[in-house]
Amino acid sequence: MLSETEIADIRATAAELADAARVATLAHFRKPGLMADTKETTHFDPVTEADRASERAMRDILARRRPQDGILGEEFGPTQGSSGLNWVLDPIDGTRGYLSGTPTWGVLISIADETGPLFGIIDQPYIQERFEGGFGRATVTGPMGVTALACRAPRELSQAIMLSTFPEVGNPEESAAFQRVVPKLRLVRYGMDCYGYALLAAGQVDLVIEAGLQTYDVQAPIAVIEAAGGIVTNWQGGSAHQGGRVLAAANPAVHAAAMALLNG
Amino acid sequence: MLSETEIADIRATAAELADAARVATLAHFRKPGLMADTKETTHFDPVTEADRASERAMRDILARRRPQDGILGEEFGPTQGSSGLNWVLDPIDGTRGYLSGTPTWGVLISIADETGPLFGIIDQPYIQERFEGGFGRATVTGPMGVTALACRAPRELSQAIMLSTFPEVGNPEESAAFQRVVPKLRLVRYGMDCYGYALLAAGQVDLVIEAGLQTYDVQAPIAVIEAAGGIVTNWQGGSAHQGGRVLAAANPAVHAAAMALLNG
Repeated sequence: MLSETEIADIRATAAELADAARVATLAHFRKPGLMADTKETTHFDPVTEADRASERAMRDILARRRPQDGILGEEFGPTQGSSGLNWVLDPIDGTRGYLSGTPTWGVLISIADETGPLFGIIDQPYIQERFEGGFGRATVTGPMGVTALACRAPRELSQAIMLSTFPEVGNPEESAAFQRVVPKLRLVRYGMDCYGYALLAAGQVDLVIEAGLQTYDVQAPIAVIEAAGGIVTNWQGGSAHQGGRVLAAANPAVHAAAMALLNG
Repeated sequence: MLSETEIADIRATAAELADAARVATLAHFRKPGLMADTKETTHFDPVTEADRASERAMRDILARRRPQDGILGEEFGPTQGSSGLNWVLDPIDGTRGYLSGTPTWGVLISIADETGPLFGIIDQPYIQERFEGGFGRATVTGPMGVTALACRAPRELSQAIMLSTFPEVGNPEESAAFQRVVPKLRLVRYGMDCYGYALLAAGQVDLVIEAGLQTYDVQAPIAVIEAAGGIVTNWQGGSAHQGGRVLAAANPAVHAAAMALLNG
């Protein structure tokens, strides 16, 4: 059981991480030359550079503020800790969105104990929008101020909206399962990267279904969505903490309906 | 030939229209109840309401400031003018994006004479980002300040990025043509609504290909993209001023390469 002081320090640390990642990622976003064809002679890849600079900035803060915690990041190897708490970092989730200039990528920051993610942030630096959830609170802070996050109420699948990143989801078997869900819904939209999970937590959509995810892709979304009243599992209803096939839903009713189709 | 005074008035009027549309569209965006299932008893549809309020606000401004101009809008019938100039308005382009909470919809505002669009705005109210082009200038004003718009330089299709709204483009024949282009590219992303055209003008991507568009869907993007150095035609290389099948490209080389595949 974490003390109030410890929780406050975790929140403040996470905010500092997200602030630092904003600076690091926006330094290259939409800048001329980002998509200059990589010259064989220079080997400079600005997306990778932004990705690594963002994670490095966050690791520097954690080394100073919370050296007792472990770190799992996308870009560098795991760092062991002694506190039983592990930060899970994705410095740019959605590098293809980043590369295309779309405001759908994000910085994912979360902290977990042995039971799973406790608190998470989905930050969209360009929009200056931060979705966060955990320790009994879920909010978005952005262009329209601060608003509580709350997943939407149950509705028929025929009224539901799903977001995903690509129309081609996973391997052929996974794709077939995904395509059993699509025609049952009111609307399916693609191209959202981690922003889809943020919109689920914000009560804008009912479902996000993806496959082939990594631990650092899902832990922050899980924390935010669960704090907003939603549910995230794998396609069989088990833990999605390690990524893989992810079914995120606004409520148990739509979760059950979608899972039945995925396994249908 | 429009005078400098006339051009300045058109720019100022367009800015006032976009400001008013921001207020009208954000009044309903992401608000609780936006996606409440439409009750048969009330017949209240908040997306339609926002769409109509946005166009009404713009028409009120035009009636006051420029009663001599004609108006073509999505929601209300055409208004005849006497100046030879016509405003073309789409109060919410991308209502499905609006409905899903994604920041990809926009307000489209343009003014045309008998030769086609002279000046246009693609405004994204939630991000507070305004792409505008015409009369010898193309800029974006948004979270990172004011930046000149410039379409990117030619590159091989194998290095090109395309944005579109849906993976299912048009009728079967149109879809087949679209799918001849897809595998030749580096990356294709969906879900962008009019924001895809804005990113083309901003030099972030190389192509946007769509079908089934209306006049009010394309005239503002055409003005912005042409002012940024790009090219927008139909799939045969003719005028896209009336919508239909649209091929927008960052430069003539990538335009020609994509058109050859569409007609291949």
